[in-house]
Amino acid sequence: MSMGEEPGTSLLARVRIVLSRPTHPGNIGAAARAMKTMGLSRLVLIEPRRFPDPQATALAAGAADLLATTAVCDSLEQALAGTALAIGFTARRRDLGPAAHDARGAAAQAVAEAQTGAEVALVFGTEMAGLSNEELIRCQRIAHIPADPTFSSLNLAAAVQIAAYELRLAAVGATPLGDERTPPATFEELEGLFAHLESSLVASGFLDPYNPRRLMERLRRLFGRARLESQEVNILRGMLAAWDAAGRRGR
Amino acid sequence: MSMGEEPGTSLLARVRIVLSRPTHPGNIGAAARAMKTMGLSRLVLIEPRRFPDPQATALAAGAADLLATTAVCDSLEQALAGTALAIGFTARRRDLGPAAHDARGAAAQAVAEAQTGAEVALVFGTEMAGLSNEELIRCQRIAHIPADPTFSSLNLAAAVQIAAYELRLAAVGATPLGDERTPPATFEELEGLFAHLESSLVASGFLDPYNPRRLMERLRRLFGRARLESQEVNILRGMLAAWDAAGRRGR
Repeated sequence: MSMGEEPGTSLLARVRIVLSRPTHPGNIGAAARAMKTMGLSRLVLIEPRRFPDPQATALAAGAADLLATTAVCDSLEQALAGTALAIGFTARRRDLGPAAHDARGAAAQAVAEAQTGAEVALVFGTEMAGLSNEELIRCQRIAHIPADPTFSSLNLAAAVQIAAYELRLAAVGATPLGDERTPPATFEELEGLFAHLESSLVASGFLDPYNPRRLMERLRRLFGRARLESQEVNILRGMLAAWDAAGRRGR
Repeated sequence: MSMGEEPGTSLLARVRIVLSRPTHPGNIGAAARAMKTMGLSRLVLIEPRRFPDPQATALAAGAADLLATTAVCDSLEQALAGTALAIGFTARRRDLGPAAHDARGAAAQAVAEAQTGAEVALVFGTEMAGLSNEELIRCQRIAHIPADPTFSSLNLAAAVQIAAYELRLAAVGATPLGDERTPPATFEELEGLFAHLESSLVASGFLDPYNPRRLMERLRRLFGRARLESQEVNILRGMLAAWDAAGRRGR
């Protein structure tokens, strides 16, 4: 952190807000404004219906600069490139999926991760349906914003506002941590691990690709909770390679 | 509190949100929606420029019922009738004025006051200028929402959203997270897993028992962080058995 910089600024700079398939450009602008009020600057859009758009610019008010640097992607994989922790925000309860936080707990974890130097994403779904299961399973954590159970439908930008507010409180209050862990695995390393795991399980006969019974989802959830380090991904892939080789000798 | 009622509901029922001279009807509707998501229902408007208005109704989304019971006053005195505590929200620092809280502290004080049976108001000013000094001096407390000092201009409905969110958390506590997990693995199950993992790794050639390089320690640390469930131990042991069998065919 450079001299005179506000505490927490360097942590907030490692957090991106990802909006998946936003329908209304006004919500994009309002989300940008919400981010900027809390010191966040990195907005990533996945397949926005309309962007750029005059309505987005109007609702961004003084945050139009942030829209100018907004990235537009065509997949969640692209949007999460380089991140070590993705937290998916959802109003719905899920049977299967990553471990759950409330918004405050999610902010604390995001800041703890950013303190290790890692990149973090907070991911929000469409206005009507939220994040799909396929999107959520690519997040290591899910977060709920506590709300009235009879009317929990927060506006998209309002949800971003609360998440950004909690993040700011967590970041500005945070002090740098001692480095107890080695660097966390990146999204790409984790996807490489899951692809390797899947092919090894198919080769061994444990995973029937025609009847997968959500096995890979369960394993993503398990390893997602563990928050793997890069070194650990390397070890696990070494183990898989050894089992693969032993099995090949058997065929 | 009646039986079956959600905790905190009777406290939230004693809190009104007062918007002084809101300019944009869309902000009134968005504020109503923000309130309803957090279980607040009493909105009071002082001299709104336009109300009722189709734009307010549109942005209220599922909270149009709340607009139907919204009171319209022509002075702050009317809006605060019957209250024991009024907290004025402001972005600007004031030299003179009531004691200041942040949003979380303001929510705690509002709830403490409501617990005595008293009526509480959270008061918000116009979009452009906020509350006037004459209005603030009629509040017993002022509150700031922590924000980036270089861009602290929250949208009016976004400010109401954060205040209502903090109020809800103070009133009901963070809602308990659903128990989405199946029973955790027992000590014996975990030891069985690690013994199986070790023998499979030795069989595959990945683990040299004469030079183990703390591999099992690393794996214990990794799976320890994941807090494995019984079902997950069974799945992992099934995977190991399949790799073992594939390897045996190779020997």
